[in-house]
Amino acid sequence: MSVPVRISIDAMGGDHGPEVVLAGVAISQARHPDARFVLFGDEPRLTKILAARPALAAVSRVVHTEVVVGMDDKPSQALRNGRYKSTMWRCIDAVKTHEADAAVSAGNTGALMAMAKFNLRTMPGIGRPAIAAIWPTLRGESIVLDMGASIGATAQSLVEMAIMGAAMARTIFDIPQPSVGLLNVGVEEIKGVEEVKEAGRILREDEHPDLRYHGFVEGNDIGAGTVDVVVVEGFSGNIALKTAEGTAKQIATYLRAAMGRTWRARIGYLLARDAFKMLREKMDPRRSNGGVFLGLNGVVIKSHGGADAEGFAAAVDLGYDMVRHQLLTRIETSLLSRLPRGDAAGAPEAAEAEGRS
Amino acid sequence: MSVPVRISIDAMGGDHGPEVVLAGVAISQARHPDARFVLFGDEPRLTKILAARPALAAVSRVVHTEVVVGMDDKPSQALRNGRYKSTMWRCIDAVKTHEADAAVSAGNTGALMAMAKFNLRTMPGIGRPAIAAIWPTLRGESIVLDMGASIGATAQSLVEMAIMGAAMARTIFDIPQPSVGLLNVGVEEIKGVEEVKEAGRILREDEHPDLRYHGFVEGNDIGAGTVDVVVVEGFSGNIALKTAEGTAKQIATYLRAAMGRTWRARIGYLLARDAFKMLREKMDPRRSNGGVFLGLNGVVIKSHGGADAEGFAAAVDLGYDMVRHQLLTRIETSLLSRLPRGDAAGAPEAAEAEGRS
Repeated sequence: MSVPVRISIDAMGGDHGPEVVLAGVAISQARHPDARFVLFGDEPRLTKILAARPALAAVSRVVHTEVVVGMDDKPSQALRNGRYKSTMWRCIDAVKTHEADAAVSAGNTGALMAMAKFNLRTMPGIGRPAIAAIWPTLRGESIVLDMGASIGATAQSLVEMAIMGAAMARTIFDIPQPSVGLLNVGVEEIKGVEEVKEAGRILREDEHPDLRYHGFVEGNDIGAGTVDVVVVEGFSGNIALKTAEGTAKQIATYLRAAMGRTWRARIGYLLARDAFKMLREKMDPRRSNGGVFLGLNGVVIKSHGGADAEGFAAAVDLGYDMVRHQLLTRIETSLLSRLPRGDAAGAPEAAEAEGRS
Repeated sequence: MSVPVRISIDAMGGDHGPEVVLAGVAISQARHPDARFVLFGDEPRLTKILAARPALAAVSRVVHTEVVVGMDDKPSQALRNGRYKSTMWRCIDAVKTHEADAAVSAGNTGALMAMAKFNLRTMPGIGRPAIAAIWPTLRGESIVLDMGASIGATAQSLVEMAIMGAAMARTIFDIPQPSVGLLNVGVEEIKGVEEVKEAGRILREDEHPDLRYHGFVEGNDIGAGTVDVVVVEGFSGNIALKTAEGTAKQIATYLRAAMGRTWRARIGYLLARDAFKMLREKMDPRRSNGGVFLGLNGVVIKSHGGADAEGFAAAVDLGYDMVRHQLLTRIETSLLSRLPRGDAAGAPEAAEAEGRS
């Protein structure tokens, strides 16, 4: 545990500017004294912010970087204008060159994924990367992926996601054999879910030491916490996540309105305010801020663009945990343990060759 | 308004048996004295239930039907064993033979859709039927479709859904030109959403008198009520609906736990109990029970299988409203108004011919 965890930060990403990003890094730094940071952004501005944060300054290095990828830039545009020279690119590149163990950015998702894919490449044995979110549930937390790294998924990519999601669950929940469910719809025998069915068949037949395949789950199973890992292709996953966020916001609005309507309700609210505070914390989206890019040769964390300092700190914490608990090694090991037994002795080379074919 | 609305009921569908179904019909009947019912099911059992409900009995006719489609029967199985003779089939068939204006069933969705499609066929100009749900939002209610009638959608089916959904919004919300959004993910330039983009292009270019195309919306826009009609293919739509239900349930559980934790919270809860009651009613899934099958030559309403009497009544109400406010005619008119101007004079025949080609 004595080797420091080095995290590179896209200090200019996000809606609120470097003040909020660095305030978030400082919060996370206080929780992880062994973390070190490389901050990419406008040096004069960052240095000024750090002057007021000596504890953070002591463990940070600033790399002056002028180009910033816009929040609305298309991925192709971002790659064209920001490759090699933007804060986002250099933040990812620090992971590639082993100056950092994880990269964290609140910049735009499409650009971040495009740059991360382009620069870090997918791991041997993984066809496409995925974005995993941590979802608060009635039983604790689950991992849901893909949140929109790509649209549509073959049976093979769903299986890869199951393996990567389970590795992530082992990393952060410390469960030896996480349960995995494939998100599906309840209606039987309708066309178009062949990939999901086929992935289910593969996961059932391929006995896997690192995960327990539960079967199909439906949308309501996510919040119920029926399984540790929920696998779904990115279009539906992204919609599920945002629909859940919208529903939570809607209910919070109803609740506020109801509690302000009469004097009795207002007094009741005051008496129960600790309970409401607990509820608010439980529903606080900042607590679970941070999408993890899985399947790349490096750890990249995407913070919500609108995250405040607490939210950004959660994303940095997540990056720290992924490194500290060896997410990448766990995924690699899991991929290897899937090899047909005869080949398993062939060790990494065989796996790589197979993965890349 | 003097012509009665005739509704056929699959009295044996659902998880709770005909007692609950008929209790629901009775609730709706009290709200609509001009409704008439045809009840398909076990005659001795239904007659006995009706004996205790004279008001309902006075406007109902029982048709003895023995075969019942199981809640877990696959659609193909249901068609094989239940065609012509099951309560579900005969309930739909009453609409086809014009004995009823709408059919309501709490039976299994896949079987009901298969039978409805097989028996009623799709309307001219409609490739595939869709299931529409009424979704409570911060601004009132919206219509979301497709909830899982089919998986994957071409641009053309998304456009058809937009037109049908808008017709339904005009029918029940009484808005002359409902706003329509296509559900999409925020990430730009990723592969696989070509259909959604193409549908957006068609809706933007085809100026349509009966709807206002808003553009893309995301998952959180559903609960916000950004548009009157949200269009999405059935896999994602079904997942969105169930995820929202799961989230609402999750928050209700958190809230209950928080309010029972301390004496202060419990007293606060008692004082604010009217507010909580209002909130519960607002979140009550029974209020918006009922999926409307759109695109068929007849009105079919699917009630949730687990609906209680209040829930089933809401589904019957929905069927009543669809008939009373002429859903089918509105959809037909909308489809006609899409014809290229030169052909519009060609009247229904031309539209039918085009639609069927």
